[in-house]
Amino acid sequence: MRAPQSDLLHSELPSIAADILARLRQRAPRVHCITNSVAQNFTANVLLAMGATPSMTISREEIAAFVGGADALLVNLGTFDAERRVAVDIAVKTASESRLPWVLDPVFVDRAPPRAAFAKELIGKGPAVVRLNAREFFALAGGEAKNATVAVYALEHKLTVALSGETDFVADGSRQASLANGHPWMARVTAMGCAGSALNAACLAVEKDAWRASVAVLLILGVAGEVAAANSKGPGSFAAAIIDALFNLDGVTLIQRAKVK
Amino acid sequence: MRAPQSDLLHSELPSIAADILARLRQRAPRVHCITNSVAQNFTANVLLAMGATPSMTISREEIAAFVGGADALLVNLGTFDAERRVAVDIAVKTASESRLPWVLDPVFVDRAPPRAAFAKELIGKGPAVVRLNAREFFALAGGEAKNATVAVYALEHKLTVALSGETDFVADGSRQASLANGHPWMARVTAMGCAGSALNAACLAVEKDAWRASVAVLLILGVAGEVAAANSKGPGSFAAAIIDALFNLDGVTLIQRAKVK
Amino acid sequence: MRAPQSDLLHSELPSIAADILARLRQRAPRVHCITNSVAQNFTANVLLAMGATPSMTISREEIAAFVGGADALLVNLGTFDAERRVAVDIAVKTASESRLPWVLDPVFVDRAPPRAAFAKELIGKGPAVVRLNAREFFALAGGEAKNATVAVYALEHKLTVALSGETDFVADGSRQASLANGHPWMARVTAMGCAGSALNAACLAVEKDAWRASVAVLLILGVAGEVAAANSKGPGSFAAAIIDALFNLDGVTLIQRAKVK
Repeated sequence: MRAPQSDLLHSELPSIAADILARLRQRAPRVHCITNSVAQNFTANVLLAMGATPSMTISREEIAAFVGGADALLVNLGTFDAERRVAVDIAVKTASESRLPWVLDPVFVDRAPPRAAFAKELIGKGPAVVRLNAREFFALAGGEAKNATVAVYALEHKLTVALSGETDFVADGSRQASLANGHPWMARVTAMGCAGSALNAACLAVEKDAWRASVAVLLILGVAGEVAAANSKGPGSFAAAIIDALFNLDGVTLIQRAKVK
Repeated sequence: MRAPQSDLLHSELPSIAADILARLRQRAPRVHCITNSVAQNFTANVLLAMGATPSMTISREEIAAFVGGADALLVNLGTFDAERRVAVDIAVKTASESRLPWVLDPVFVDRAPPRAAFAKELIGKGPAVVRLNAREFFALAGGEAKNATVAVYALEHKLTVALSGETDFVADGSRQASLANGHPWMARVTAMGCAGSALNAACLAVEKDAWRASVAVLLILGVAGEVAAANSKGPGSFAAAIIDALFNLDGVTLIQRAKVK
Repeated sequence: MRAPQSDLLHSELPSIAADILARLRQRAPRVHCITNSVAQNFTANVLLAMGATPSMTISREEIAAFVGGADALLVNLGTFDAERRVAVDIAVKTASESRLPWVLDPVFVDRAPPRAAFAKELIGKGPAVVRLNAREFFALAGGEAKNATVAVYALEHKLTVALSGETDFVADGSRQASLANGHPWMARVTAMGCAGSALNAACLAVEKDAWRASVAVLLILGVAGEVAAANSKGPGSFAAAIIDALFNLDGVTLIQRAKVK
């Protein structure tokens, strides 16, 4: 059961998302993304469509300079090796020192134990948001991704969990929201989740409340997905159309279409 | 000259391809792809469009876990360095132990001798299929890619050779087929061949007869290319349209358009 | 002030560009690209659309063979680490020995000092063209990117500078041109500049005058961008449409639309 205040907030979330969208375009934050090579191009184009500026180096010699000059950081574990582990360590340290918000996307931690172990370490280093799906949550938290479990995990680790699925679910220690926008073709385009995590980092740069920022991203991406699907013939044209839809999305459409529970 | 039985089989190949297409979508195999960073995104999207699930890590620390949990493996030599050689060695060893079928795509072996030497080693380790073009075949086999030479090579090495060209040619020790579908723009989109090899691996996961699986992939991709070209203005829109076409391809269209000789 | 001869040349530049475009398609040069993984796919597709053949390995074991067999080289500093530095060193040495023209694209040298230092070293090794934006020029040259400063820098370093911006500017020691084609969405697609640099390298393979080749590329890309924008709904569809536009661009359209000052 939700308290009345929380109910009020839920009905306001679409407007809050529209406001965050406007700020994102106005402020054009720099987002440094440590992500896998599969996802880099699409992630960069999604950020550029929203007005943000991506950078993506993982070189140990310069990543501190890039992160230090950025407004937010994404750590995506889509590739996991010694080089990237070093890059992540430097990046997270730099983000902490610069009080930069960062998002952890523990891609495929359900597939390889060393990756899961590294993700657990990173959780202890203060990400503002963890974005993942049910299988990845299970590998990380050791329990099923039910709403109550997710909320407890968020509370214990003092972060926001953004759980993607048919219905997305976002929880921090005290608040939660279920979001029902989106389209099945979003799961047919590689890096859609990774790009969403990068966009989440971009939103953190313009909205300090990580829960609100995460809700906003899922609404923005979900509504853009619905608009894009109506203009596409399959997942190939959809991948381009969702970038167009993000670029053209206006606050009114976002508010009208948002499905918050 | 083909024996009557072989003639019968040739006329049945389009139906067989349609059946493999249906199984692919139903079983949604996991395909681990060791491929170059140029090809990763397009390859992943082609697999996702067909219902398969791609993974792409080359980290030596976790590639065994990924390959061990997959249904088929692609080894693409599009980038060749110490790190990838280690990844390939572990992946092929894991595939052998797990009796997983794998496809070798010896990209550009005609351009650099060390790459050709490594490809020759890999041929000895039991790939189900080798997919390549005429120049790559020459570098690997030391002879021109005439149908008879290709068939002999396939017989000697106990594998299926899928030779791409204006007319594709698929041979194992006892059977051969020439396939005339496709469109010139397929050569204008980077990673089209690499994605085809990944799709070949996916088909091996649902069809044990490697020759049939390879014929099916070439028919599926060639027909999708023809459909896509009719909906495109150039190679840019074509790259998206062929993913749409693969996603929407039905067995009837495949059978009607297939050109098997 | 321009001399009369220079005026004459400026009015001829669109025709010269059309001629270079035709030669590019006819000769289909091989271009080896050392570029970052974000840019590889789009860069390869832009080259293929224009009839050129890209290769992209950075493996130290084979890069000399690839560069040695190519017609031009691109060195893009979009990622900067020990592995790529070695690759660049070998590639530049091979290019010098083979008298191959090469283009330097010092991406983001304004963001990290070690990258800027490496770029300065490379300037001394004889690139035919340096392509960059105003911020990158400042980091490299230590002065604002005004036309006079850029021209002096080009003269001092005996190369062509292609400076991208709202109006592009191309200068070598004795000639300069301002080019006003293009569309704002070109800045919303990642790797657009990198792909332009690769295309510049391709043009050097068919036109020895680096200044003319660089002017031609900026006109070709700018006009293609305008055509593409008219057929797009946002930066997602635009990324595909500009590849179509490059593929379909004819000399007459190029000459009619070119804006040379």
